[in-house]
Amino acid sequence: MGKNLTPFLLREQIRSGNWTGPTSGVATGYVQTNLVMLPKDVAFEFLLFCIRNPKPCPILDVLEPGQVEPTIAPDADLRTDVPKYRIFRHGNLEKEVTDVTDLFDREMVSLLLGCSFSFENALLAAGVPVRNIEEGKNVSMYITSRKCRSAGRFKSSLVVSMRPMTPEQAVRAIQVTTRFHLTHGAPVQLGASRDIGIKDLSRPDFGDPVEIKPGEIPVFWACGVTSTLAAISASLPLVITHSPGHMFVSDLKDEELTLL
Amino acid sequence: MGKNLTPFLLREQIRSGNWTGPTSGVATGYVQTNLVMLPKDVAFEFLLFCIRNPKPCPILDVLEPGQVEPTIAPDADLRTDVPKYRIFRHGNLEKEVTDVTDLFDREMVSLLLGCSFSFENALLAAGVPVRNIEEGKNVSMYITSRKCRSAGRFKSSLVVSMRPMTPEQAVRAIQVTTRFHLTHGAPVQLGASRDIGIKDLSRPDFGDPVEIKPGEIPVFWACGVTSTLAAISASLPLVITHSPGHMFVSDLKDEELTLL
Repeated sequence: MGKNLTPFLLREQIRSGNWTGPTSGVATGYVQTNLVMLPKDVAFEFLLFCIRNPKPCPILDVLEPGQVEPTIAPDADLRTDVPKYRIFRHGNLEKEVTDVTDLFDREMVSLLLGCSFSFENALLAAGVPVRNIEEGKNVSMYITSRKCRSAGRFKSSLVVSMRPMTPEQAVRAIQVTTRFHLTHGAPVQLGASRDIGIKDLSRPDFGDPVEIKPGEIPVFWACGVTSTLAAISASLPLVITHSPGHMFVSDLKDEELTLL
Repeated sequence: MGKNLTPFLLREQIRSGNWTGPTSGVATGYVQTNLVMLPKDVAFEFLLFCIRNPKPCPILDVLEPGQVEPTIAPDADLRTDVPKYRIFRHGNLEKEVTDVTDLFDREMVSLLLGCSFSFENALLAAGVPVRNIEEGKNVSMYITSRKCRSAGRFKSSLVVSMRPMTPEQAVRAIQVTTRFHLTHGAPVQLGASRDIGIKDLSRPDFGDPVEIKPGEIPVFWACGVTSTLAAISASLPLVITHSPGHMFVSDLKDEELTLL
């Protein structure tokens, strides 16, 4: 359901309120993105954070203050075209909404950052299993002990997503995801969960736990949720992000982002 | 001469005034960069320009206002460690100097952008000739008819560098430079000079003309000089850049920037 929708038609469904659910697996082959909206007077500092941490925060588009139409999806409106938004006040989640037209103003800047849904499609195409898709769950995400490089008032621990697979499949997954350097690229760790501060794989900080079968190792990729943690770390009066799993769907094709 | 200098020792020579010449071919294997310094109140807009034009303006480092020590060369000082600087006032070249300590202030932001010297080493290592190095000249650079995407008050035509080679060598050059996506990456054009508005290859807009031998085609890469044209396009009271060919030499190794 929604797998074969074009991004244009999907966004139309979202804008009209007919689609408020997650976007995993819909409009297959098109780039989905994380969204961060924040005041323009901190936009430079936040851009620095992203530039200094390109694995978790790959920049796909940055709009000028007040603009709502991304270049990677002309005719879209970022105030209405995300299925669910999160509103943070002074670093705390206030509520989730499906439209931010009344909150977004000319003093705010929007950033769109790469999302791992792009390489999940490529993993499946390469015959590498994606457990969270097999189990119909949200991917397991963990806050690691690795600190990102900070920028001004923005700081965050690195958040990773985890997919279990055999070592042989991990080799293939590294090859495949290396090509997708703008949607988190190659893994940041494999196997050694404790080395990055993860004590219990069955208790992710975000998303759902998935089964790890005998002979499988956890493979960790940098995760866009890092950008949300960074954005709210500055305790700003207002930060708007997408709700986890409820991404913005662009007109870019996954393959357009690959290097080779 | 200087080929085997470490970046640290080379910068020491530059800082003490013993090295004021070009940096092509020195400290081989280390990443050299373009430099742009401009007021912090336009830094966000200029970053947008670079983000929107990643082929000519690949961002390697951005310093916070007033900072002079890049993360890609701890202990360096950007006010003294470039052999020659250009000072632009209201978009016009005022002078060239070897130290900007008296001009740079706490209100300015420095950006370091990738430079093609990195892939020239890789081309030579792969057996592809680099004519400008063979002839001991500065590479030929042309202002094309292609417009970059603008950002706020910053705009520029795309500037390209050109290296002549056989079609077979061009295939290899495309493979080799694709790996170097942060130092301009794969070519933007080959053969069809007129399609990008270049009427006479023997009259480059910057650098020197080089010989094009029978059977060779011109191969064009996006060029960092684009960032200088963009920076001065806003007619700001003060913009500081490196002088063409007189780059900042970082501690990063060329291979650290490659994807594969």
